[in-house]
Amino acid sequence: MGKNEGEENGFDPENHNQEEEEEEKKKHLKEEELSVERIFENQEVPSWRKQLTVRAFVVSFVLSILFSFIVMKFNLTTGIIPSLNVSAGLLGFFFVNTWTKLLQKSGLLRQPFTRQENTVIQTCVVASSGISFSGGYGNYLFAMSERIAKQSTDTLDIKKLSLGWMIGFLFAVSFLGLFSVVPLRKIMIIDFKLTYPSGTATAHLINSFQTPQGAKLAKKQVRELGKFFTVSFLWGFFQWFYTAGENCGFANFPSLGLKAYDSKFYFDFSTTYVGVGMICPHIINISLLVGGILSWGLMWPLIGDRKGDWYPADLSSDSFSGLQGYKVFIAIALILGDGLYNFLKVLSQTIVGLSHQLRYKDASSGLPVADHSSLVSSRLSYDDKRRTQLFLKDQIPTLFAVGGYVAIAAIAMAILPHIFHQLKWYHILVIYIFAPTLAFCNAYGCGLTDWSLGSTYGKLSIFIIGAWAGASQGGVLAGLAACGVMMNIVSTASDLMQDFKTGYLTLASPRSMFVSQIIGTAMGCVISPCVFWLFYKAFDDLGQPGSQYPTPYAVVYRNMALLGVKGFSSLPKNCLLLCYVFFGGAIMINLIRDLVSKKWARFIPVPMAMAIPFYLGSYFAIDMCVGSLILFVWGKINKVKADALAPAVASGLICGDGIWTLPASIFALAGLKPPICMKFLSRGNNAKVDKFLGS
Amino acid sequence: MGKNEGEENGFDPENHNQEEEEEEKKKHLKEEELSVERIFENQEVPSWRKQLTVRAFVVSFVLSILFSFIVMKFNLTTGIIPSLNVSAGLLGFFFVNTWTKLLQKSGLLRQPFTRQENTVIQTCVVASSGISFSGGYGNYLFAMSERIAKQSTDTLDIKKLSLGWMIGFLFAVSFLGLFSVVPLRKIMIIDFKLTYPSGTATAHLINSFQTPQGAKLAKKQVRELGKFFTVSFLWGFFQWFYTAGENCGFANFPSLGLKAYDSKFYFDFSTTYVGVGMICPHIINISLLVGGILSWGLMWPLIGDRKGDWYPADLSSDSFSGLQGYKVFIAIALILGDGLYNFLKVLSQTIVGLSHQLRYKDASSGLPVADHSSLVSSRLSYDDKRRTQLFLKDQIPTLFAVGGYVAIAAIAMAILPHIFHQLKWYHILVIYIFAPTLAFCNAYGCGLTDWSLGSTYGKLSIFIIGAWAGASQGGVLAGLAACGVMMNIVSTASDLMQDFKTGYLTLASPRSMFVSQIIGTAMGCVISPCVFWLFYKAFDDLGQPGSQYPTPYAVVYRNMALLGVKGFSSLPKNCLLLCYVFFGGAIMINLIRDLVSKKWARFIPVPMAMAIPFYLGSYFAIDMCVGSLILFVWGKINKVKADALAPAVASGLICGDGIWTLPASIFALAGLKPPICMKFLSRGNNAKVDKFLGS
Repeated sequence: MGKNEGEENGFDPENHNQEEEEEEKKKHLKEEELSVERIFENQEVPSWRKQLTVRAFVVSFVLSILFSFIVMKFNLTTGIIPSLNVSAGLLGFFFVNTWTKLLQKSGLLRQPFTRQENTVIQTCVVASSGISFSGGYGNYLFAMSERIAKQSTDTLDIKKLSLGWMIGFLFAVSFLGLFSVVPLRKIMIIDFKLTYPSGTATAHLINSFQTPQGAKLAKKQVRELGKFFTVSFLWGFFQWFYTAGENCGFANFPSLGLKAYDSKFYFDFSTTYVGVGMICPHIINISLLVGGILSWGLMWPLIGDRKGDWYPADLSSDSFSGLQGYKVFIAIALILGDGLYNFLKVLSQTIVGLSHQLRYKDASSGLPVADHSSLVSSRLSYDDKRRTQLFLKDQIPTLFAVGGYVAIAAIAMAILPHIFHQLKWYHILVIYIFAPTLAFCNAYGCGLTDWSLGSTYGKLSIFIIGAWAGASQGGVLAGLAACGVMMNIVSTASDLMQDFKTGYLTLASPRSMFVSQIIGTAMGCVISPCVFWLFYKAFDDLGQPGSQYPTPYAVVYRNMALLGVKGFSSLPKNCLLLCYVFFGGAIMINLIRDLVSKKWARFIPVPMAMAIPFYLGSYFAIDMCVGSLILFVWGKINKVKADALAPAVASGLICGDGIWTLPASIFALAGLKPPICMKFLSRGNNAKVDKFLGS
Repeated sequence: MGKNEGEENGFDPENHNQEEEEEEKKKHLKEEELSVERIFENQEVPSWRKQLTVRAFVVSFVLSILFSFIVMKFNLTTGIIPSLNVSAGLLGFFFVNTWTKLLQKSGLLRQPFTRQENTVIQTCVVASSGISFSGGYGNYLFAMSERIAKQSTDTLDIKKLSLGWMIGFLFAVSFLGLFSVVPLRKIMIIDFKLTYPSGTATAHLINSFQTPQGAKLAKKQVRELGKFFTVSFLWGFFQWFYTAGENCGFANFPSLGLKAYDSKFYFDFSTTYVGVGMICPHIINISLLVGGILSWGLMWPLIGDRKGDWYPADLSSDSFSGLQGYKVFIAIALILGDGLYNFLKVLSQTIVGLSHQLRYKDASSGLPVADHSSLVSSRLSYDDKRRTQLFLKDQIPTLFAVGGYVAIAAIAMAILPHIFHQLKWYHILVIYIFAPTLAFCNAYGCGLTDWSLGSTYGKLSIFIIGAWAGASQGGVLAGLAACGVMMNIVSTASDLMQDFKTGYLTLASPRSMFVSQIIGTAMGCVISPCVFWLFYKAFDDLGQPGSQYPTPYAVVYRNMALLGVKGFSSLPKNCLLLCYVFFGGAIMINLIRDLVSKKWARFIPVPMAMAIPFYLGSYFAIDMCVGSLILFVWGKINKVKADALAPAVASGLICGDGIWTLPASIFALAGLKPPICMKFLSRGNNAKVDKFLGS
């Protein structure tokens, strides 16, 4: 149950006062009783080679195809893709478990199914289906096509889609993320103890299923997980019936009133995010809400009042020269400020630690991040100790990772300009120099909040590379291609770090996971373009507004690129100034947190988390705060029970809703539409509608 | 906790096999621990005269005015009135408790506030505000006026409304119900142990509030009650925001699909009826659902297919010559069949028991209903013994009741023809001969299901007396007046029996309650016409369709009367035949239940309960089945806890929603309207509406 530790230590593991230490001791006594790894103690962990079985990759291949279809559908309909880690873990278990049970009955089983193997499958499927998103079929890649170009009233700078170059492009850019993740692995998971809610949930799921018979607490957890899984799944199913149109259903319930709803303040009844809120530390959930109130409650209305002054009044609501520009760029500034601060902090601590260790010739425990690492490890619970030990056993040499990164970057620099003539080798070089920093930021933020901001970083590249290349040099295409390069690295960083968290909690070897990720990525580079090609050829109206697959983001991305080539000057008035303010603010907040005592530090919001609602609105923050509240009240009523069962409940909530997306997608692909719309109308509109329907 | 006993014994207390006896013994052991009256053991029960305090009647008077306003508002807007017993009990407590606490502090308190006094207030307020409904301001009385007559396109047979004759009419008819209830009291509550859910809930509430300090279980119950009271109240409040128009909000949630909703199969999220379902025996809830499926699922669609054959196709949907006629009259037939069977059964058992007792000169325990009464009482729990003892202590002589009934009937016969010239003395005589039977039926049915069917019996009178008087003799007015006479008796019977149940459970003396009811009735006869007069004079468009107070039932009642004067021949084809079939069916079912062994008897549905959804639809039956299901599952998980706390939870649910009607009414009177409509549209309609709102 490393959760609570992760909460606190994720921010500052240095300051421990007397009280907290005693609390910690008590917690550890409890943890001894609640230890997951004690249950698995008698189960041998197979060597990393044995974790990679043929059956695992057969199952992974089948699931990859399935998930690619699902993700593609999300891509092409709304562009918003829920985390599928959990579903992958669960389905992997079901497939292999059924398989091994059948073999066991026929007496042919040579190797039992282990949770490490389960994690390997999950990792492979995530790596593969992740490319269905980062491949940009719903955004940057499709935005290059003629179909989309026609909609945004320019037909310059287009690239005819073809299966060949898409596969080549993906092979060139998809593996880099993998190598950038490897050195960050230990920092994020062992040193920072970040939560990675989806990864943690998946791990709990896998551990629960694989629990040997006889463990009482585990059984209880499995029961809770099963109960809330069922509730969450059925709730998703029930909700589905009422979503016959846009803005229909519980996801659009104006639970705080219509005015608040218009500013994206509402509880959207998403069990996924309630579960995520139960796994995330309280301060993260509060930070999200604070960010939402600051932006949608305060700043956007105030900036909106300057309409016609700061920016033209006749712009469409999603134009980046208007309010939308402030939203996206201020959020980016805040994320970059926080990310940069933490990156530099970790870097300096790493250097200090390294030099310290080199001086005293004590390099037994790998790369220590700071002096306090020994302090922390002495207080580790049994679970943490065992997990850390196995996580650090099969090292992947940093030199290998760096070498791989450089080699692949060189190959990409050679190949990519041949695919996109507008993208020069030096553009790619610049991206690859800055990418690891951004990958760090994203992996860090995702660890805190479960949100991957790959597309945000991608947007940044559109602007920078687009402006650099210039309109006359085909900056639109260069920007979109750069977006692809960046998104692949940054998304992979966060996705795979989630997997490493799962691996950490299930004792899977990092080396077997790395191999699995490479195989999964290779699968994805072939499967996802083929699936897209199927959709593209099957539906002639793909990408047309109002059609079954409107791909809303493709047009948005193309418009962003068109705007980008005009440079930052096309941003609305004072936007850049505000960006500087928030960038500095993020650094300031982090500095204050590190300077004040821990007692107060835990009340200071996290800028990274605050930034996310700037663009999306607060609805998911409210879900997560509800999760926090549930956990808080539960803890007040029965602390021991809450500590023991909350992760299982949260995982159940996340998994149930996650798995529901499967049948929901199948329904959608089969053309089965929900029958009812639960609509929310103001009293005035309702009277009008009643009159209209009556006549 | 007499609840479980009531469930079984309400139907047949005779058959006890070995197993059940043992179970009963175990239950009794448990009941000893859970006894409510043990908690109150040290509290002296004041004599019946001391239960009637001046402060009680002052509070009653204030509350009567408040509740008259509320009921009148329901009367004039939708015509559907929720049970207000609970609110009366609660508010009575708050008023007097605050008063006594203030007096106690100032040292002036002479008499402590007892739960008996609380019951007296509750009874008085219910008796008084009940007249706001049975006075017919929303139906029969207002239907006589010119305003309504104009709408139903006839202006014959009208009576100009005036405060004078309305008060006179009420005084003439309102007291009869009281006297008809008195002899039934013991049969319904002691012998049949009927549940009277609202009355039971009110009693639990009063007991909970008045519990002396230190009782652990009671405290637990009070906490549960408080928790669910709050939840239910807040839920009502939350729902309110989404009810900006007709068919809006959770009460119209098509949880089983739109087709099922059109046939009134849906869960309407009413915590009141979920609570009622938890208090009612399982078989009653199942009976309601079976009745709903039989009627709305099977019969009405089949009869609907005969449209144009069995009845004209061009009738409006609420015409009694069409489908509506089948609904109302078949329901009445079923209710009358069941009621008559039980009436005759009890009568015969009473005669047998009486003759038996007279023969053996053993008349110590009052009027025994059957031979088994001694058998039952030997097994009574402490609570039941103490309650029965006090309930039977202050007798009201049957002769006094019969004498009062005859005397008041005679007065009414003399006065009423002077108010309504069309109503002859022999009409009234016939009504008063049959009324006690019908009062019995209604009190019995209400005890089982919490539904009072006063208006159903009233409708029956419209048809019978209207047809008898004939169109030329002013049958319309005669029918409506007869409806008033009948409704007052029958409604009073069920309302006051609920109060007697409350009294039984709070050890209030029947004599003090009777006095309180007389005073309350007298108050109501003056207050309610005055309140109506206020509305009538204040709103010129009162009774106009589409206005703030459309009084929908007034037009319906007038149309029924117009139809009635043409006699039964105006009923649609085969309706009378079906009525005979169902009347006979009800008697058959009861016979079968009495003939088969108890093991099977408890699976046979109750016709009285089955009839109610015939007319109203199954939505509340589904609510109640949900309540049943919750109780069932809870019982499976923790039987002891469920038995101990379920009544408190149920009462909390009923009370919270009940009290919410108060602020809701005040909002409505203040013109504060809900801001949002939660609407449910089919996919097709939704697309149309989106287009309409978009343009």
